[in-house]
Amino acid sequence: MPRLAAEALRRRGVRVVAAAVREEADAALAEAVDEIRWLSVGQLGAARRFFAEQGCQDLVMAGKVRKVHLFRNFRPDLDAMGLLWKLKDWRDATILSAIVRYFEERGFRWLSQLEIDPALVAPQGAIAGRAPDAKTLRWMQAALAQAKALAGMEIGQTIVVKQGTVLAVEAAEGTDEAIRRGGRLGGGEAIVVKAARPDQDPRFDVPGVGVGTIRAMAESGCRWLAVEAGMTLLLERERMVEEAARASIGIYGLAADGG
Amino acid sequence: MPRLAAEALRRRGVRVVAAAVREEADAALAEAVDEIRWLSVGQLGAARRFFAEQGCQDLVMAGKVRKVHLFRNFRPDLDAMGLLWKLKDWRDATILSAIVRYFEERGFRWLSQLEIDPALVAPQGAIAGRAPDAKTLRWMQAALAQAKALAGMEIGQTIVVKQGTVLAVEAAEGTDEAIRRGGRLGGGEAIVVKAARPDQDPRFDVPGVGVGTIRAMAESGCRWLAVEAGMTLLLERERMVEEAARASIGIYGLAADGG
Repeated sequence: MPRLAAEALRRRGVRVVAAAVREEADAALAEAVDEIRWLSVGQLGAARRFFAEQGCQDLVMAGKVRKVHLFRNFRPDLDAMGLLWKLKDWRDATILSAIVRYFEERGFRWLSQLEIDPALVAPQGAIAGRAPDAKTLRWMQAALAQAKALAGMEIGQTIVVKQGTVLAVEAAEGTDEAIRRGGRLGGGEAIVVKAARPDQDPRFDVPGVGVGTIRAMAESGCRWLAVEAGMTLLLERERMVEEAARASIGIYGLAADGG
Repeated sequence: MPRLAAEALRRRGVRVVAAAVREEADAALAEAVDEIRWLSVGQLGAARRFFAEQGCQDLVMAGKVRKVHLFRNFRPDLDAMGLLWKLKDWRDATILSAIVRYFEERGFRWLSQLEIDPALVAPQGAIAGRAPDAKTLRWMQAALAQAKALAGMEIGQTIVVKQGTVLAVEAAEGTDEAIRRGGRLGGGEAIVVKAARPDQDPRFDVPGVGVGTIRAMAESGCRWLAVEAGMTLLLERERMVEEAARASIGIYGLAADGG
């Protein structure tokens, strides 16, 4: 995701510098950006100074930092300690909102993740294969409402259903494992649905699907992937559509209002 | 569960006859009841005639019939077809309510599953081991609210949490597998919480925990089991408490209002 975002921005002629989290980012990111600084989780002040040195004005978040890093080997700098100290809880959205605010208060502007490249945003309707029939579409819509409720409770954004029955719900095990479990239980007929939070802040944590999603689905026998149109990033869209076609998987963009 | 319910009722001097579902019930059930008739899923009229022949007035549901039987090798008799035909959907609660009504309209009375034996119902407070500390109790209460919401969406009744983060949510894979997954992700500190539905009908599907629950927890490194006091059946309570003690697992009954 960070590499794809950097490539998309550079195609638009933007100079891209990255503060890369050592514990998470791929070394190959260095080749996709004009300048890179490797930092540890918790080096918030160092990130701010690097952006200032580089003359950055606009920031965008890309990729994920697993919360487990807050529990082990975590050495926050003074800025990070100040930020964490004031939080009412350590929910993802609470921490990420505070980071957004930290940079805004220091003169930076945030780009929405959906603004990186319009071609990355899921459109409404058939994305790979044909559109689903009316019954499948109803199951997808019901599942989208359930997945949104789960995302709102900070549980997970992905559920796997079959004929209206919920086969698997994602929590801490990660999307691909939830997909594989649901796919196996569905015996070739499972529908995977990924939703944005009800109060999604497009500056962070926008749901994304990629080739890995399609592979986990193909391995376990899932038939459909439904995502929220206008709110989901399609990473590597062309390769996704190719792999989906090969595995007879349909990808469909649902309107958030259920259309 | 059917065997334990039958034993509890016979200890109270009640004559017990069972209409046992061939696809689900254990052959050993025959020894715990005065009379048994083996039926297939869908033989609703045959169950009614058997109860009438036996002079039954009060009925109680015990155990589960997996919905998968409605999809494969399902041969409903005329009464079952008439019942299913009128349903607005095939959600568990819809089907079970219709079965309850079918027998009530024909002169039978239903016992609440919580009335089988007061000793089977989870009390409030420490059931095995010491009471949790204030922080753990708060995590349990938050998880109970989340699990109730999930149960209300017909997803599952069990979630596994650690320090306020949801590790695993039960859907179609079953309680024990969800517990094992969450326990592994929790690295020895997981809390398992099982809730009743928000609109629980005590005539069916009351949550139950047993020795199997404790074993799945012990194998995967869970620390606490929290259940809803007054709304949960403790099956084989003595053996559960013994096994919990051996694995340093605490069992705690939460008041439904969060106490």
